[in-house]
Amino acid sequence: MNADEQTRFVIVVAGGKGLRMGGDMPKQFMPLGDRPVLLHTLDAFYRYDSEIRIILVLPDGQRVYWHNLCTDYGFTVPHRIVSGGETRFHSVKNGLALVENALAAEGTAGFGGALVGIHDGVRPLIDSKTIAAVYERADFENGAYPAIPVTDSLRKFSAPGKKSVAVDRSKYYLVQTPQVFRAELIIKAYRQEYRPEFTDDVSVVEASGLCNPVMVEGSRKNIKLTTPLDFVIAKAMM
Amino acid sequence: MNADEQTRFVIVVAGGKGLRMGGDMPKQFMPLGDRPVLLHTLDAFYRYDSEIRIILVLPDGQRVYWHNLCTDYGFTVPHRIVSGGETRFHSVKNGLALVENALAAEGTAGFGGALVGIHDGVRPLIDSKTIAAVYERADFENGAYPAIPVTDSLRKFSAPGKKSVAVDRSKYYLVQTPQVFRAELIIKAYRQEYRPEFTDDVSVVEASGLCNPVMVEGSRKNIKLTTPLDFVIAKAMM
Repeated sequence: MNADEQTRFVIVVAGGKGLRMGGDMPKQFMPLGDRPVLLHTLDAFYRYDSEIRIILVLPDGQRVYWHNLCTDYGFTVPHRIVSGGETRFHSVKNGLALVENALAAEGTAGFGGALVGIHDGVRPLIDSKTIAAVYERADFENGAYPAIPVTDSLRKFSAPGKKSVAVDRSKYYLVQTPQVFRAELIIKAYRQEYRPEFTDDVSVVEASGLCNPVMVEGSRKNIKLTTPLDFVIAKAMM
Repeated sequence: MNADEQTRFVIVVAGGKGLRMGGDMPKQFMPLGDRPVLLHTLDAFYRYDSEIRIILVLPDGQRVYWHNLCTDYGFTVPHRIVSGGETRFHSVKNGLALVENALAAEGTAGFGGALVGIHDGVRPLIDSKTIAAVYERADFENGAYPAIPVTDSLRKFSAPGKKSVAVDRSKYYLVQTPQVFRAELIIKAYRQEYRPEFTDDVSVVEASGLCNPVMVEGSRKNIKLTTPLDFVIAKAMM
């Protein structure tokens, strides 16, 4: 990072539960190639910028497991951990509290234009080019996110099991992460009360009226690992 | 096929051009594992029902190449070939003309309830379970198609580069093939004039007002091979 660039943060949200409950292993800890998913994800941001400040949001019950994982794999990418909340919204809010404290402690007026990215822990195949494009665009526009066009025919249902209509797929985009915002703005946006329609960070920022984040070209490889099939696909794309 | 079941057809549309133009090889002929894509696709329908009548729609300039391919790979799945048209709509129409002639020649009143599926040649990973589900549902409802839910966040743009809004992804489905219809009905629907909004066969049938095809659960593996990355993914999923 050059001295004249602003501070960059990324909040990596690893919400998957289940470790203590005897259920399935959370997706973020499942192996992908030589290492668990989450190690790939953090590494991707470190490769993009070795001075980016990584904040990992992790359920409390997974801290020890994570610590041991880092030791076992000799994982040395610097990061800080904060506790996960009830919902994704609350988890991100916890991450932002750490950003705010860090910037306040450093005493930079207006947070010095710092940028905060928020990224799904289970999107390990994010590449430096896409990360750079989103952070750069967010620096101009105060908010940016990656998205890709829909390539299959798309239909909309009025309700589950009801009549559907074909819609013009060229108007629709699939939204990915990291979603990146000016620190001041995203911290302010997250002071809103939680609403169920807050499905991602762009929707939180838009609801705040503070900014209209802009879209940048995402990557087909930047998939979210949710099913066993996704792991097969991700492994092939690595 | 049992004697009391109706005749089943599938029209496999292999529209990819380019073989004579010195451009890239059409996707339907690219290798996927041990064989070209289109051999996998035809085989999938043969595995589902060895008596299904397969009609392959192929650009005229690719017939000799296809014939040689079948010889080289010892491919013996029975099928008939018809010429591709200017657009997908016209290609399907050519396939339906063959269905109509075949059924008329056999002299069955009302085509004996025959069913016609229409499938993208570049969807080779379609499985017997999905094919069976669509044909069975179409037999009850006169028209059916496979689709899968959207799993990423979805945004809609008013126009390219313009403002976007988050939409409720749970109302949207990605439409696949085979799309299957009662023969009488799809033949009649294709007598309409071509319109640019006919992006698939369900949209043609809906516009005819003859039937409202119903959705059945598709398969995440049933991807359409359009980019080199799709081939990597398909290979991994095989």
